[in-house]
Amino acid sequence: MNFGSDNQAGASEPVLTALTDAYRGTASAYGTDHYVQAATAKLKEGFETDLQAFFVVSGTASNTLALSTMVEPWDGIICHHQAHVYLDESSAPALLTGGAGMLPVPSKGLRIDAQGLTTMLERIPNDPPHNLRPRALSITQANECGQVYSVAEVAGLSNIAKDAQLRVHMDGARFANAVAALGCSPAELTWKAGVDVLSLGATKNGAVAAEAIVFFDQTLATDFEYRLKRSGHLTSKARMYGAQFSAWLENDHWLDLARSANARATELRSGISRSGGIRLAFDTQSNETFAIINKTLYRDLLAEGVSLFDWYADALPPQVPIKDSEQLVRLVTSWATSSDEVIDLLNTCERLSGSTPKANET
Amino acid sequence: MNFGSDNQAGASEPVLTALTDAYRGTASAYGTDHYVQAATAKLKEGFETDLQAFFVVSGTASNTLALSTMVEPWDGIICHHQAHVYLDESSAPALLTGGAGMLPVPSKGLRIDAQGLTTMLERIPNDPPHNLRPRALSITQANECGQVYSVAEVAGLSNIAKDAQLRVHMDGARFANAVAALGCSPAELTWKAGVDVLSLGATKNGAVAAEAIVFFDQTLATDFEYRLKRSGHLTSKARMYGAQFSAWLENDHWLDLARSANARATELRSGISRSGGIRLAFDTQSNETFAIINKTLYRDLLAEGVSLFDWYADALPPQVPIKDSEQLVRLVTSWATSSDEVIDLLNTCERLSGSTPKANET
Amino acid sequence: MNFGSDNQAGASEPVLTALTDAYRGTASAYGTDHYVQAATAKLKEGFETDLQAFFVVSGTASNTLALSTMVEPWDGIICHHQAHVYLDESSAPALLTGGAGMLPVPSKGLRIDAQGLTTMLERIPNDPPHNLRPRALSITQANECGQVYSVAEVAGLSNIAKDAQLRVHMDGARFANAVAALGCSPAELTWKAGVDVLSLGATKNGAVAAEAIVFFDQTLATDFEYRLKRSGHLTSKARMYGAQFSAWLENDHWLDLARSANARATELRSGISRSGGIRLAFDTQSNETFAIINKTLYRDLLAEGVSLFDWYADALPPQVPIKDSEQLVRLVTSWATSSDEVIDLLNTCERLSGSTPKANET
Amino acid sequence: MNFGSDNQAGASEPVLTALTDAYRGTASAYGTDHYVQAATAKLKEGFETDLQAFFVVSGTASNTLALSTMVEPWDGIICHHQAHVYLDESSAPALLTGGAGMLPVPSKGLRIDAQGLTTMLERIPNDPPHNLRPRALSITQANECGQVYSVAEVAGLSNIAKDAQLRVHMDGARFANAVAALGCSPAELTWKAGVDVLSLGATKNGAVAAEAIVFFDQTLATDFEYRLKRSGHLTSKARMYGAQFSAWLENDHWLDLARSANARATELRSGISRSGGIRLAFDTQSNETFAIINKTLYRDLLAEGVSLFDWYADALPPQVPIKDSEQLVRLVTSWATSSDEVIDLLNTCERLSGSTPKANET
Repeated sequence: MNFGSDNQAGASEPVLTALTDAYRGTASAYGTDHYVQAATAKLKEGFETDLQAFFVVSGTASNTLALSTMVEPWDGIICHHQAHVYLDESSAPALLTGGAGMLPVPSKGLRIDAQGLTTMLERIPNDPPHNLRPRALSITQANECGQVYSVAEVAGLSNIAKDAQLRVHMDGARFANAVAALGCSPAELTWKAGVDVLSLGATKNGAVAAEAIVFFDQTLATDFEYRLKRSGHLTSKARMYGAQFSAWLENDHWLDLARSANARATELRSGISRSGGIRLAFDTQSNETFAIINKTLYRDLLAEGVSLFDWYADALPPQVPIKDSEQLVRLVTSWATSSDEVIDLLNTCERLSGSTPKANET
Repeated sequence: MNFGSDNQAGASEPVLTALTDAYRGTASAYGTDHYVQAATAKLKEGFETDLQAFFVVSGTASNTLALSTMVEPWDGIICHHQAHVYLDESSAPALLTGGAGMLPVPSKGLRIDAQGLTTMLERIPNDPPHNLRPRALSITQANECGQVYSVAEVAGLSNIAKDAQLRVHMDGARFANAVAALGCSPAELTWKAGVDVLSLGATKNGAVAAEAIVFFDQTLATDFEYRLKRSGHLTSKARMYGAQFSAWLENDHWLDLARSANARATELRSGISRSGGIRLAFDTQSNETFAIINKTLYRDLLAEGVSLFDWYADALPPQVPIKDSEQLVRLVTSWATSSDEVIDLLNTCERLSGSTPKANET
Repeated sequence: MNFGSDNQAGASEPVLTALTDAYRGTASAYGTDHYVQAATAKLKEGFETDLQAFFVVSGTASNTLALSTMVEPWDGIICHHQAHVYLDESSAPALLTGGAGMLPVPSKGLRIDAQGLTTMLERIPNDPPHNLRPRALSITQANECGQVYSVAEVAGLSNIAKDAQLRVHMDGARFANAVAALGCSPAELTWKAGVDVLSLGATKNGAVAAEAIVFFDQTLATDFEYRLKRSGHLTSKARMYGAQFSAWLENDHWLDLARSANARATELRSGISRSGGIRLAFDTQSNETFAIINKTLYRDLLAEGVSLFDWYADALPPQVPIKDSEQLVRLVTSWATSSDEVIDLLNTCERLSGSTPKANET
Repeated sequence: MNFGSDNQAGASEPVLTALTDAYRGTASAYGTDHYVQAATAKLKEGFETDLQAFFVVSGTASNTLALSTMVEPWDGIICHHQAHVYLDESSAPALLTGGAGMLPVPSKGLRIDAQGLTTMLERIPNDPPHNLRPRALSITQANECGQVYSVAEVAGLSNIAKDAQLRVHMDGARFANAVAALGCSPAELTWKAGVDVLSLGATKNGAVAAEAIVFFDQTLATDFEYRLKRSGHLTSKARMYGAQFSAWLENDHWLDLARSANARATELRSGISRSGGIRLAFDTQSNETFAIINKTLYRDLLAEGVSLFDWYADALPPQVPIKDSEQLVRLVTSWATSSDEVIDLLNTCERLSGSTPKANET
């Protein structure tokens, strides 16, 4: 039972077939091949606009190289206090932007809210050139707390950002899950809502390893190949990325995969609501579920080989109570998760906790 | 006819099969999976020593991250004046070392020679802290001019380097071709000859995209995962690298591929020696061949769709004459090149240049 | 009336005389002169230990270059949430450490306390290599909120830091004021209490422009001249620093200057306690005083040309109430501030606010 | 007898007086004071144009921060193969530009010549994004080999540079000596000849420590205070620079000082031409003189305490013969050098070498 992370899943058959096919012949190097061109064409079609796209091997590269186009080395990048790019990407933002720093929003909700962003922008130290100067906002969609921003929320944050001369970046490591959850179009959720650059992740959702940096504001893409090159991300056999993304985008395959992952998460959340020994920490809308379990059950689950992931207790909203005897965990379903696996996890929890389902309590 | 670069070739079937197989199930993330462990075990076996290995997606990442472990940000790295890491990796060395600079050997032979290195070390400005302080030597094997250093040459350069407190790095983007050309063991050509870290490339020789950074001096590997992470090279689904390298190293598959590429180069060089309209610029020992052709033929070849690569005229040793009407080109054979392709190229040259083979001239 | 900052004061006559004298002849360059040697000797004497010292022109250079010796570019530096090096030194820490980040202690007291530091070290994300790894603690003494850490407090924090493998840096832009306030020896407040490197500021306390980086742990000073050089801080006519520091340290001149600044602050705080229209925001022990005044008085003071400095409202402890109609200001006295100036400010406040002294209220 | 470097001289009395006067009172911080404003006004007057100026403590900071405004971190900066910024500023260019590299002109004359620059621009590797992309030219005036570029030479190089999209920087550590040597106006030698930014040094020519970065192209000055701040070069008591530069520029004091230094160099060169045991290595036009002496005399001079400076033999043009028994030395005269010192040095050479003046040979 693997609920540790969607990056532990494999790759979908269409992606694997496309990758294999692409390597049974020659292709020109460094992104000039027709696989990359085809993937870019599919992105234009999928996002209903002209754009430029570049491809890298990791989300960290995708996020930080994207951000490097938006800020000067002496600027700051506003983000959620649980943002991956703030907590989980080491000093990559500093390295690849040349020194810029992350500025987490002080108000600690599960998502960035308009009021918190506005207040922060008003109060942040502003005595040039002494302080970090905010010049970008990075929104994760779906975010690290499993939240999906509505189109209106994204547009609202973008408007505040633009008014304050900030560029808008979207960390879309789980963008497909957000689109699937909202049922909107990719365009509505990005450039139509003010997003300048999207870091679009395929790795967690069925690819071998492929992340796209999608420039809706193409002026930011100037010299981007130099940024790739100097960070070691200009791959010679770049068809790797082109082949994966083409197959992934073809016929909404990416959204089908994400819908499946989301559906399993819905089943999981529903099951947890009815189970004893485990409860939802807070509501989520994507393929991530956060639960609170007592530490005895937690240890028993690990002992049975269930893959879980401890989560930062600081992520909890103040109103969510957690005891010292309890553990906050993240449970992720992927495109490859089956309903049987979900049921298996729920049954295991009940068996180990010796509890009966909550349905019986009523 | 593709002789532009070995990075335009595809991937071998064993590599593709292994990659596909690895993605038909789950695996733990960030290099903790058993594919990566198996690849490391095979490297230890192949190099007959304990070692640490890390994997990245490009030669530039492999070279510059390796070098970053050897020097302080205020140091210099000695290399050949045609070294890839000096001429063709943009500002990656500066970025990933934190500021260190490349120091090309002034004497301009086709390979670094002991005398040139010694003289350079004696004469280089040495007024601390004003100048770049040499602390590493990077040797490309086989090198950018198609040269293969003998085991004795590598050991000789390493000895000079070590005496001057320099670490020794080997850029092995075409290391397999060098081993195949020399018929020595991988161990003899690396750690036994004083190499501290090897950047071992599989991409040009049958892989999809996979480069290993092999630490024979394991003290240099301290904190290396942080270097990977902060440059965006810690890949979540790292099994990609493990699966490729395992298949590539299995049963000397990598050396078989390199032997084939080298054999085609030998056929090509032999054919050029007998042909009119084209001549060898200088001797090479690997899968790279450098030829001088007149510009009319050059343009005709391009017009027929032959993939060639212009080369820096500065690479020519002073004694090799080249006319303004001539062009220096690099011709690379890969594991995928067939003898028929070589014959086809030679015939095309003769047809286009209207010349008869040199054998007839005698 | 200048209470804006001690960096607006001039330089003391002994410092000016020494500086002038040093430039009436030749001296060897880049810190090899006897003025620098004499200053270093005086530092050894004043701190009662062997040490290495280097000199720079600004506090930002002093702090960030010192910190650069303590951490790797992927590490984090723990500090107070109001630390100058966190809020007011732009991206200098990232630039000069090569990418390291500041990690402010979450608990928001006026000074770092042992409990807050301990809790932070327990809870900080610790999943290598994904997060910033804490490796240094920076304590400002006297700090940005006017607080002076006792010898026992410094030693307590250092012990916690050392147990967690952190190096200890002291930002001593106002170190002289702290020593003067505590009446302890410089040694007791630094290396005897676990401080590895002190950034010792003279600029704010009587010098023209001179900051010393004092290495008690001399292993950290390795290659430090390269750090100076590459950041543009290896000054050719370095006697500038040597001459200033020699005169400044001579016969406890530096402590006399600091005692005077502190005494004026005591007079100011005492006067504020007795005055209407202005009140102390919180207690301080150095030459900085924080007061809350209503915004009408604030504007009237500015209109009269009084030099004040707005301070971050976030600096206030939660229990200090401030109204929207009020302004938090910082008032700094320097070695050059006279008692008459203090009285003048107090009288002006009373005149403008139309209030009578509080003494009359009782 | 001090001929080692003009940075070993003291400071002129007008500079010292101005500096001292400026520190006998308060002034606002971080360059907002009226001393800095007055210095900027004098620069505008002296250069007969509007401009922006910033001030730093060292030539390395001045050069590399200036260059950082001209290039992206993946660009290259063309310079002479003996340029201070290439050979003698450690990794400062890489650090402060974010990774850009120096590209020395291959043709090795004593100064950059138009033909050498043109040829270099034609032949430099140009396969984006793989190579360093030239985007700036840095000319030292007077240069490290004592050469003074004529106004026409500067304009000629600037034209070539501008045609190739390069910005033009002038390293003017000895700019005053060049103006004094040519008798032209500062404007003619800089912005009228195509120079975008001048690093104007006062330190070597009578100041305590003061370097100005003068932006003729003011678009390059955007955000420059952030560059100062993050490298630790935003000095709080910046009046230090303003006071020095005001006095230095006042009434052509700077040119008087340079004329004196140049005149002593002329006397020295003239004397060397007539002396035995020492000969000029090549002609120079500024306050630097390069001489070849036999090693016995060299050692004897050092033993007598004469301050000399070994110079890179590589600086010699190919046609200048030097024997293994000889030493190339640099002799620098400063504003403080007296004619007596020059005569003293010449007499000492003759006495130690046991030779009679060449005049007697005829």
